[in-house]
Amino acid sequence: MLETTIAAIRPADDAAMAAARELHGRLTKPAGSLGALEELSVRLAGLAGACPPPLPEPAAVAIFAGDHGVHAQRVSPWPQEVTAQMIGNFLAGGAVVNAFARQAGASVTVVDVGVATPLPTEPAVLDPAVLDPAAPRLVVASVRRGTRDLTVTAALTRDEALAAVQTGIRIADELIDAGAGILLTGDMGIGNTTPAAVLIAAFTGADPLDTTGRGTGVDDPTYAHKVAVVRAALARHTLDPADPLGVLAAVGGLEHAALAGLILGAAARRTPVLLDGVIAVSAALAAAAFAPDAVCAMVAGHRSAEPGATVALRHLGLDPLIDLGLRLGEGTGALLALPVVTGAVRVLHEVATFDSAGVAEK
Amino acid sequence: MLETTIAAIRPADDAAMAAARELHGRLTKPAGSLGALEELSVRLAGLAGACPPPLPEPAAVAIFAGDHGVHAQRVSPWPQEVTAQMIGNFLAGGAVVNAFARQAGASVTVVDVGVATPLPTEPAVLDPAVLDPAAPRLVVASVRRGTRDLTVTAALTRDEALAAVQTGIRIADELIDAGAGILLTGDMGIGNTTPAAVLIAAFTGADPLDTTGRGTGVDDPTYAHKVAVVRAALARHTLDPADPLGVLAAVGGLEHAALAGLILGAAARRTPVLLDGVIAVSAALAAAAFAPDAVCAMVAGHRSAEPGATVALRHLGLDPLIDLGLRLGEGTGALLALPVVTGAVRVLHEVATFDSAGVAEK
Repeated sequence: MLETTIAAIRPADDAAMAAARELHGRLTKPAGSLGALEELSVRLAGLAGACPPPLPEPAAVAIFAGDHGVHAQRVSPWPQEVTAQMIGNFLAGGAVVNAFARQAGASVTVVDVGVATPLPTEPAVLDPAVLDPAAPRLVVASVRRGTRDLTVTAALTRDEALAAVQTGIRIADELIDAGAGILLTGDMGIGNTTPAAVLIAAFTGADPLDTTGRGTGVDDPTYAHKVAVVRAALARHTLDPADPLGVLAAVGGLEHAALAGLILGAAARRTPVLLDGVIAVSAALAAAAFAPDAVCAMVAGHRSAEPGATVALRHLGLDPLIDLGLRLGEGTGALLALPVVTGAVRVLHEVATFDSAGVAEK
Repeated sequence: MLETTIAAIRPADDAAMAAARELHGRLTKPAGSLGALEELSVRLAGLAGACPPPLPEPAAVAIFAGDHGVHAQRVSPWPQEVTAQMIGNFLAGGAVVNAFARQAGASVTVVDVGVATPLPTEPAVLDPAVLDPAAPRLVVASVRRGTRDLTVTAALTRDEALAAVQTGIRIADELIDAGAGILLTGDMGIGNTTPAAVLIAAFTGADPLDTTGRGTGVDDPTYAHKVAVVRAALARHTLDPADPLGVLAAVGGLEHAALAGLILGAAARRTPVLLDGVIAVSAALAAAAFAPDAVCAMVAGHRSAEPGATVALRHLGLDPLIDLGLRLGEGTGALLALPVVTGAVRVLHEVATFDSAGVAEK
């Protein structure tokens, strides 16, 4: 399934991109006056192989949740139970991601790929429709109850990492089959910025000082300890960026692996995937290592306050749409950026040309 | 009317801001993890004098259109008729601002405060409702058919400038009376980045090289000429930043003056006003000169590619929400930022607290 998905990922369509550039020159606005939105719409035309590309609607957020053996190393001030408790909050509609998703008309799918503690609640609505924007949905696809401690041993076996990647692919297929026009990455997992920092260092070669951040807000001693943990993980494992499954198994989280799968699944279906923060972009590095052309499907939603996000985005060659110092995760930064993506495509669908509007050119 | 409006503008409410900060600490997210959105929501609580402040809905874009005597100095490659032709495009729904407004559910009001050439079309819908998001509306409130050439004489008399400012206040009142929860600034006027550059230099003391940009895209010789024109205007007139009406009369445009009025009108009604690009922020400097507390009502939608916008925003102490190299005007940058503003306020309305959601704290 992973191999089939990778084989289906194709480069951008040059003809569609050229058509989008040409159309931009005829629309009633000065050439280039929409800045980064113009190139974004051109990229999405290349992904879709059509000009204009389809409007990225409806939007579907997929939040992958998992726990982390490295939590035992005290890299986060939050108790591990918060991962499961926040899933309860997502399903009850009380989290920031729910507020932003309601505003954007996006559906929310929560996927337990490896939560360590029992989930506290049933969904408020049992078996909601796949793309129901009013009712968050829970998918239980737990590979194991949290990863092993990556400072001691491999976080996952290769089979476990593969199972999580394939879950991500399956969720992408399911959402796109249900009609989603764009997928948004979300994540939940106390401690998950630590494996993200290791993944980013492994795939980019950057120093742990540049890939490790303060996550949900750690103090100076905890931050120094966290950098040391990331450094220890890199020393402990032999990480080959050309073997992304091996890297994900050694130092990843189950949600990181699943997000890599979601991205690959979206790219294989020529559907854009809007990346959230540092967890998403660390997974995107793995996806790009599996299939370099998967980058064509990626849109960077925002620049997380986590420094590793900037390192990863630079490596991927992606410029984020929003830069407001967010570091919440869940998919919140991607949701804030969604109207920018939709607006960029909408211009190609709805704006009049100089000819049709009877407006003189310079 | 201007004096009454200015007198009604009050400082931010400290108690409401403190309440918003306290509420943010109890919501189910790490403290500070929403970055700039948290402070934005605190500012809007201070403006409204309530926590949470009302959701900024519905949104109303007001596009003020005017022409410019300085166009005779060849500061723009576009014919002056394009101002009127673009009004036709706005009313037919074919411009980028229309596409973005439809997406955001915002109404569009086009106000002719001083277009030089005849308007080419009637509105597609005659007399649409004030806040109808599906039908752009035209208000004819022309003060004169374009300004005089500011390199030769005062662009406007004080009475003309006052009439335009009062039109802006009246439009703000009308939109807010109709129920608008937030106003968005828009503008149309071939040549209007030149008076904006003069206004920004006059109010901030910055050098014309730093306040003058390439507008819709001028070549190097035209740019150098444009800077010289801005410099000549500053030399020609005695501009006292403490007399904003005098500055607007000497070197402003009718749309700049009207936008200053719109901002003052919104501030007097404690209603947020989302600023678009360089025309808007030049008008915002005038509004702040009339009433410093008007800044409390201002939200900077985006950082225009025009360098003067950055100079003005710094002077106002405002950080923009979006920075994507846009330089189109019309209100497009403000509309892209609108979901960020709404999202920031929505968090205070809809997100569960740690207590209510049963989520542990660190």
